Amino acid sequence: MSFGIDDILRARENIAGKVIQTPLLESPFLNRLLDCRLFVKAENLQVTGAFKFRGALNKISSLTAEQRAKGVLAFSSGNHGHAVAAAASLLNCSAVIVLPNTAAAIKVENCRWWGAETVFYDPNKDDRETFSKNLAESRGMTVIPPFDDELIMAGQGTVGLEIHEQLSQRDVTPDLLVSNCSGGGLSSGVTEAFKHFYPSASVVLVEPAGGEKMARSLQTGKPERNVNLGPTMLDGINGPLAGTKTLEVLRRHSVSCASIDEEEALAAMFTAFKYLKIVVEPGGAASLAAILAKKIDVKGKNVVILASGGNVDPDVFARALNYAA
Amino acid sequence: MSFGIDDILRARENIAGKVIQTPLLESPFLNRLLDCRLFVKAENLQVTGAFKFRGALNKISSLTAEQRAKGVLAFSSGNHGHAVAAAASLLNCSAVIVLPNTAAAIKVENCRWWGAETVFYDPNKDDRETFSKNLAESRGMTVIPPFDDELIMAGQGTVGLEIHEQLSQRDVTPDLLVSNCSGGGLSSGVTEAFKHFYPSASVVLVEPAGGEKMARSLQTGKPERNVNLGPTMLDGINGPLAGTKTLEVLRRHSVSCASIDEEEALAAMFTAFKYLKIVVEPGGAASLAAILAKKIDVKGKNVVILASGGNVDPDVFARALNYAA
Repeated sequence: MSFGIDDILRARENIAGKVIQTPLLESPFLNRLLDCRLFVKAENLQVTGAFKFRGALNKISSLTAEQRAKGVLAFSSGNHGHAVAAAASLLNCSAVIVLPNTAAAIKVENCRWWGAETVFYDPNKDDRETFSKNLAESRGMTVIPPFDDELIMAGQGTVGLEIHEQLSQRDVTPDLLVSNCSGGGLSSGVTEAFKHFYPSASVVLVEPAGGEKMARSLQTGKPERNVNLGPTMLDGINGPLAGTKTLEVLRRHSVSCASIDEEEALAAMFTAFKYLKIVVEPGGAASLAAILAKKIDVKGKNVVILASGGNVDPDVFARALNYAA
Repeated sequence: MSFGIDDILRARENIAGKVIQTPLLESPFLNRLLDCRLFVKAENLQVTGAFKFRGALNKISSLTAEQRAKGVLAFSSGNHGHAVAAAASLLNCSAVIVLPNTAAAIKVENCRWWGAETVFYDPNKDDRETFSKNLAESRGMTVIPPFDDELIMAGQGTVGLEIHEQLSQRDVTPDLLVSNCSGGGLSSGVTEAFKHFYPSASVVLVEPAGGEKMARSLQTGKPERNVNLGPTMLDGINGPLAGTKTLEVLRRHSVSCASIDEEEALAAMFTAFKYLKIVVEPGGAASLAAILAKKIDVKGKNVVILASGGNVDPDVFARALNYAA
């Protein structure tokens, strides 16, 4: 009973009418600059500003009525928490988001705005997972995992179905998919869909330089921990651990890997500002950054990349504006 | 032989496959903040970063083969020049863009990038229109007017057809359209389409405070000049003159008017950054600015606004980032 295209097709039915079909953008300037045809899937325009909403919605809508009545719980200070809060709200389900007591005010506000309850743990004292599991058990709530879950992966995989439809409308067969990667929820879901339609295309994952947990996991064959968890503006792709289920999918499709640093992400954010007119967060700009920094050969190819999120603070975006193209 | 929906439907056929069907964005945050349902047509994501590409493409593709062989000419230092250069390039037609010798380097580069020839006039010595007409005549080229032309208006009107389709998919009937307005090309085209489908809906135009040439034209019944032509970041909606043909359409549909200033536009650009994840230029944010500044009553309504362009310099965008929501 392995993860496959049927899971993703079912996810699309589950979330239809509630997610935005985000545009697949193309810039003549970027095409000429990079000597390729570049298609940018703008998931930063998704509800909650990131692809995470798709997986959360698929997972919560697949719960039983009884489970939904008891509510859901997620631990995340970033896009996943925001997405679970929003998806739960739309499905009339109560939600608890567990955050570190050091979380930025805006992240707490985003969860509360959707009506979620926020509960804080002390990162110096509590283990986040144990804390969350105990809380969920005591309340009878279902934990919504951030990535290593087939319903989550299938939800994110619907991005790949839309890419296929949008490329078909333009009579384009892609040669290459480049995906931003942390735990692997987005990468595994989109890769599964992409390789279903384009079996001979390649897939490259992009991770933070120094925090290449999925590249190492692909080498060792088991999910590795991130050894570089320090604070970074690339937080969207710098989670603590690769997934077991996501790794299995990514191994099966023989993906390869690249990495980028913060400065390369800022330069890519500027490029997206100038040529695509979209706001992308640092981790969400990773695949564009890897291509602009010439870490992936795109010459003469049809290339699909993911702009996976747009939740960036104004002061970080102001730094990106200082980059000349 | 008055301008109508058939012109716009024909335009759509002419430009099909060459323009981007831009998304109609919606933000749950903005809906709650404004106590309405707000739909944002993101024409900043159009080829060349503005709606102007639609009209230019429709006009040039409607020329005879002989006219196209001789080439086209436009005078504009902004989005219209860029759009004519791009549309001509795609239609294998040579183009001359007439610019003031004071034009910013980036605007000259944009035209040249598409292969257009740039010719400079001295704004202290030459009359722009006379200079351009003489040059076009001497070379046998066709002048592509910026707005007061039924083919241009029809091209911009295709934005209204897409809005209708996108609202229909969501089973929404709009109450109100708010459009950024300068010469009236976009406003007249979109209003014509919008009122065809929604005859009882209202239309409000937004102009720069102090430069309300269309509001004055609607009062006097004839196209008025802009009496406040000083340099402004609202340049996209601060052209010198209202159109004759555009005015006729806007009068027929009994539109009303509002105005905004630069600070209100900057605040709207920040809101678009934060909640919509898109880059909008000051004039392109005018309709959002008017609503945020409570100059238009939107309470309880289904409201469509236009984010008409995204060509903004980084230093101006950096100013917008300083606005708190």
